[in-house]
Amino acid sequence: MNHASTLELLRARGISLGTLCLLVSLMPTAQSQTLQNTLLPAPLNIIAGNGSIAITKDFTVSLSGAHNPILEAATRRTLESLERNTGIPIGKDLQSPSPTLTIQVQDSTGTRPTLETDEDYSLSATSSKIVLRAQTIFGALHGLETIQQLVQAEDGHYVIPAVEINDSPRFPWRGFMLDVSRHFMPLPVVYRTLDAMAAVKLNVFHWHLTDDQGFRIESRRFPLLTAKGSDGLFYTQDQVRDVIAYASAHGIRVVPEFDIPGHVTSWLVGMPELGSVQRPYEISRTFGIWDGALDPTRDSTYKFLDAFIGEISSLFPDEYLHLGGDESNGADWKANPSIVAFMHAHNMKSTDDLQNYFSTRVLALVHQHHKQMVGWDEILTPGTPKDAVIQSWRGVESLAVAANRGNRGILSAPYYLDGMKTAEQMYLDDPIPDNSTLTSDQQKLILGGEVCMWAEQITAQTVDSRVWPRTAALAERFWSTRQTRDVSDMYRRLEIESIRLDGLGLTHISGPESGLRQLAGSEAAASQLALLISTLSPVSFHERYEQQKTSQLTPMGNAVDYTRPDPPLREDLRLLVDRYLHSSAPADRAAAHQQLQILFQSWIASGPALDALAPEHPKLNQLTLRRTQLTQLGQLGIQSLASIESHTPPTTTWIEAQNTLLKTAADHSELTDFVILLPLQQLVDTAGKH
Amino acid sequence: MNHASTLELLRARGISLGTLCLLVSLMPTAQSQTLQNTLLPAPLNIIAGNGSIAITKDFTVSLSGAHNPILEAATRRTLESLERNTGIPIGKDLQSPSPTLTIQVQDSTGTRPTLETDEDYSLSATSSKIVLRAQTIFGALHGLETIQQLVQAEDGHYVIPAVEINDSPRFPWRGFMLDVSRHFMPLPVVYRTLDAMAAVKLNVFHWHLTDDQGFRIESRRFPLLTAKGSDGLFYTQDQVRDVIAYASAHGIRVVPEFDIPGHVTSWLVGMPELGSVQRPYEISRTFGIWDGALDPTRDSTYKFLDAFIGEISSLFPDEYLHLGGDESNGADWKANPSIVAFMHAHNMKSTDDLQNYFSTRVLALVHQHHKQMVGWDEILTPGTPKDAVIQSWRGVESLAVAANRGNRGILSAPYYLDGMKTAEQMYLDDPIPDNSTLTSDQQKLILGGEVCMWAEQITAQTVDSRVWPRTAALAERFWSTRQTRDVSDMYRRLEIESIRLDGLGLTHISGPESGLRQLAGSEAAASQLALLISTLSPVSFHERYEQQKTSQLTPMGNAVDYTRPDPPLREDLRLLVDRYLHSSAPADRAAAHQQLQILFQSWIASGPALDALAPEHPKLNQLTLRRTQLTQLGQLGIQSLASIESHTPPTTTWIEAQNTLLKTAADHSELTDFVILLPLQQLVDTAGKH
Repeated sequence: MNHASTLELLRARGISLGTLCLLVSLMPTAQSQTLQNTLLPAPLNIIAGNGSIAITKDFTVSLSGAHNPILEAATRRTLESLERNTGIPIGKDLQSPSPTLTIQVQDSTGTRPTLETDEDYSLSATSSKIVLRAQTIFGALHGLETIQQLVQAEDGHYVIPAVEINDSPRFPWRGFMLDVSRHFMPLPVVYRTLDAMAAVKLNVFHWHLTDDQGFRIESRRFPLLTAKGSDGLFYTQDQVRDVIAYASAHGIRVVPEFDIPGHVTSWLVGMPELGSVQRPYEISRTFGIWDGALDPTRDSTYKFLDAFIGEISSLFPDEYLHLGGDESNGADWKANPSIVAFMHAHNMKSTDDLQNYFSTRVLALVHQHHKQMVGWDEILTPGTPKDAVIQSWRGVESLAVAANRGNRGILSAPYYLDGMKTAEQMYLDDPIPDNSTLTSDQQKLILGGEVCMWAEQITAQTVDSRVWPRTAALAERFWSTRQTRDVSDMYRRLEIESIRLDGLGLTHISGPESGLRQLAGSEAAASQLALLISTLSPVSFHERYEQQKTSQLTPMGNAVDYTRPDPPLREDLRLLVDRYLHSSAPADRAAAHQQLQILFQSWIASGPALDALAPEHPKLNQLTLRRTQLTQLGQLGIQSLASIESHTPPTTTWIEAQNTLLKTAADHSELTDFVILLPLQQLVDTAGKH
Repeated sequence: MNHASTLELLRARGISLGTLCLLVSLMPTAQSQTLQNTLLPAPLNIIAGNGSIAITKDFTVSLSGAHNPILEAATRRTLESLERNTGIPIGKDLQSPSPTLTIQVQDSTGTRPTLETDEDYSLSATSSKIVLRAQTIFGALHGLETIQQLVQAEDGHYVIPAVEINDSPRFPWRGFMLDVSRHFMPLPVVYRTLDAMAAVKLNVFHWHLTDDQGFRIESRRFPLLTAKGSDGLFYTQDQVRDVIAYASAHGIRVVPEFDIPGHVTSWLVGMPELGSVQRPYEISRTFGIWDGALDPTRDSTYKFLDAFIGEISSLFPDEYLHLGGDESNGADWKANPSIVAFMHAHNMKSTDDLQNYFSTRVLALVHQHHKQMVGWDEILTPGTPKDAVIQSWRGVESLAVAANRGNRGILSAPYYLDGMKTAEQMYLDDPIPDNSTLTSDQQKLILGGEVCMWAEQITAQTVDSRVWPRTAALAERFWSTRQTRDVSDMYRRLEIESIRLDGLGLTHISGPESGLRQLAGSEAAASQLALLISTLSPVSFHERYEQQKTSQLTPMGNAVDYTRPDPPLREDLRLLVDRYLHSSAPADRAAAHQQLQILFQSWIASGPALDALAPEHPKLNQLTLRRTQLTQLGQLGIQSLASIESHTPPTTTWIEAQNTLLKTAADHSELTDFVILLPLQQLVDTAGKH
């Protein structure tokens, strides 16, 4: 097929036959068993029953127990979800005398979740009724999410299968941190993030509200903080109150972070008098560790902090307040003679000692305002009070140290999404590793984990694609048992959850898809580009930073921004090649062979097609090498298949050439990594063994 | 002869501007002209120049003239758009001493557009600089949109081509009406609608805020209106103020509609005392014309209206207020003896007379609050004051009647989007038809037109796909000259504009795509379903209503909801078959043949593939017949091609069978219509002629 006709074909909107057949083959086949367990996170105990209950227009609900608006709203949302997913209108009366679904909550007085909230629930579904029981409304909320995940098809209808579930989270602190400083995230991002968190039973929204690159929340006491430090991009207190109310109604705590004493450049633009060195400050546009730091030696600093912490403490009802404490480099402290003199006078040997002094005074203020403090690894010193919670960006060892000292901890190090690792690579990292030396009591100090999304290289358009569905896999790590470690089964459920999240309004699929249309100029051309993009993932934050020196001002609408970390094709291709090489059923193997052929042919065609598009759409030249390589990898695939099928051993020269190609393709290039190389290597190796 | 003078010559010969624009794009680019005219709406005058100006990081701007925050913000948005589309970071300083782009506005005092606002602008781009001139900031806003549409590729870079544009709208009232009563539309829908309107130079957002099915705006004077009449789904006054400010900053007037005296059921739920008959009222869940109506005979009604109109008049700054007046059936008036007595006493012969009486008194109130009234056809009677504006849902004839009486008018009848007509079918309908008998002065009373989106069968997820891109074609009808009527050229530009709107955040593509994933259960399966969906459009509102009796409670997440009116494949397939049958270049014809073959094969495969998916995804059975038919139509296509290529005449039996298939497929079935039948008929006819 020549280039022009491939392009014309795209204009005619025919998806290639190859892609089409591949897609059909990848679809799951129907099964007759009622319960298809697609629950994510996996519940503690689940036993399939006999039969199922049909979802019809006569589906009814009864809320027994006391009146609670949060539970009522959540129940209505569940009914709307059932309605949306089945197409069947369902009444919203919550006091049916003969209910299909009964919700029994012991204590319905809750208005917001806390670290101590009982989140357990049990669900008993038979062929005639469903009973959801929970101690608190927040447990019931989790059960309602499970009910939505249980809906499946049977004989052309939608049903909830008979099942007994007893469920309880492994960890009480299951968080997601969103950085809104490096790139501001508008409210719709925050709301849909909360929707998705609730769907996978995460319960702490850690809001990283300030950093060198922007101060993102209104202070009425200190309006200069946003007036000078936000570029006009910040949340008002009214908006924050609404977010907190929404989060509470979804069983999610909101823990704000105000990172001090470092990471405060944006504070100092409007309030330079808080700084350790008097110089003109500007919002940091580039990334890294900055010298700007609060002056820990002046009483005026603590007077300010007292007022500021007072203001935010009354805005955020949660008992925990995150005050950062990380990456304070001490440079400005050492540069100010009066601070040096203060250290001398107080017998401090290092800026670490000074930071301890600062932390201790700040902690006292936090206590005065009836909060407990969370901070990053650096706040942990021998003098740190026992009620401080350590969030570890350094690793599980820090938490062990903390636990040994009696401090509680949260693990984040393995769960940094900007590392662009696969779900698989993060999923098996446990907050309490198998080789942990902690005693059972010490292990109880490990409260859980937090997934972290730093925002140096993301925008509202791309954030969801970096967060979801990978975060759903990690939500399972925090909720389900330590023994829940079947990666393949996780991916099976993750793909389904990804579509559920898409239906909730998350844009992890649609955002990048829209981006591809912008790059390629039409819907048809975008489908072609999608072929290439589906084989790539973005390089890690660090790698991209090395190559591109991204700043806050770097436009983020490039090809790499529309690649997705751990895209579905990685696992799909692995499974397909595995079927081809190992399936014991000849028909299945033959089908896999055909699908691989068609896929490889579509890769071969895509390079020239994109070459033809590029003159009109110069951004496509961001992937010049990758599209050439994909064509070559398609040829590698076709030739490997031919060799295997014909039992004709390839030449040594060919094998060497393919290995060289695979090695070159494995380089970080054009800010991307191929996700398809391992199964291709398998094909080459198998061909070589014939 | 140079390019520009060729264009002048063509214009002198009366060649239409639409054709002219097409010619510009088709002309050989032997010289250094680079303009590919993709502007929508087409400007009044455009002359391509020589050369282009590259968009680089050194692109700079100067706003000459007085300070105006609206213009500054719009200029920054334009720079952000250039940055997003090119990937090149551009400084946001607006006072460059040596600017690439100079913006000269004569009068920069405007804070919101009015009906009288001068919206003209001129744009002069050479190979070294761009100058945008306008009388008002709102004219400049239009010019900034044009600049964004001018960006194109040249030699692997992004440029703005040299061009001279003088532009002026044909009509001053270019509106879009959104019904938010039948289905509430959350604020993000409103905001992105305003974004898209500004992109295509529409300037009136007509907000249909109340109807039988919901009262959607806070009244502080009469809080019962939303407390009982909105299901909790309404805009607060603060939110409305924000929307108005946003619209103003985008050159858009906001004209609210409060439909009285009929269509008021939702008002009467909370305030039954306003009704003509005392009965319990409930929010109407079904659609149609309801009996509930304000009582026009009681002074208390006018006392209420005085206060209510006062409240909304101070909220909405625009000089015009829409008070509906349509479809008041008079039933409740006739049912109330005291109203009948009142009519008798006042010598009224019909309920029409009573409505006239009501309209007259309401108009007096509107005047008292310094507003002018807009109403639907029904408000026009011999006694209607001359300053009332008639919006016609009945047809262009009503406007002629109005103009004859000296009343101004707006045409909407041909532009009802829920009719699901193609852009082409609506595009040629002119507010002043060629056969108009109006005098030139009377024609000036035709202010323009409004596209109407009624919300009985749409939701926030699907609204954009019903509105865009079709509304962009109609925006051209209101803005560009009467002679702009080249349908094929309109579609060429519309496809490009559709992608631009997608980039602005409109969800006309991504919303339905996400819906398909919900129906099909995975990204891969959704691509398969997309093959079928791309060949279908939804039936009209009326047809669907007949078949489904939709109500406000009908779930809208069905296959039909994710089909798009006038989908791109309709025009694309027409062009492809035309090339195959009529191209004089053998290679082009051969390419078209190949593309058609592949497309038809994909249709053949899609039916069985969807059959295989359906057991797991029962909603797919909403298109059982259609998927079977698509497979058959694919076979029809393949067989027609084979017959034509081999010069083998088909049998009469075959021809009859195909014609029967095409006839059956043309039925409204499963709430959808095929959009691919005409070119297929051409293929069958051509095969039969061999």
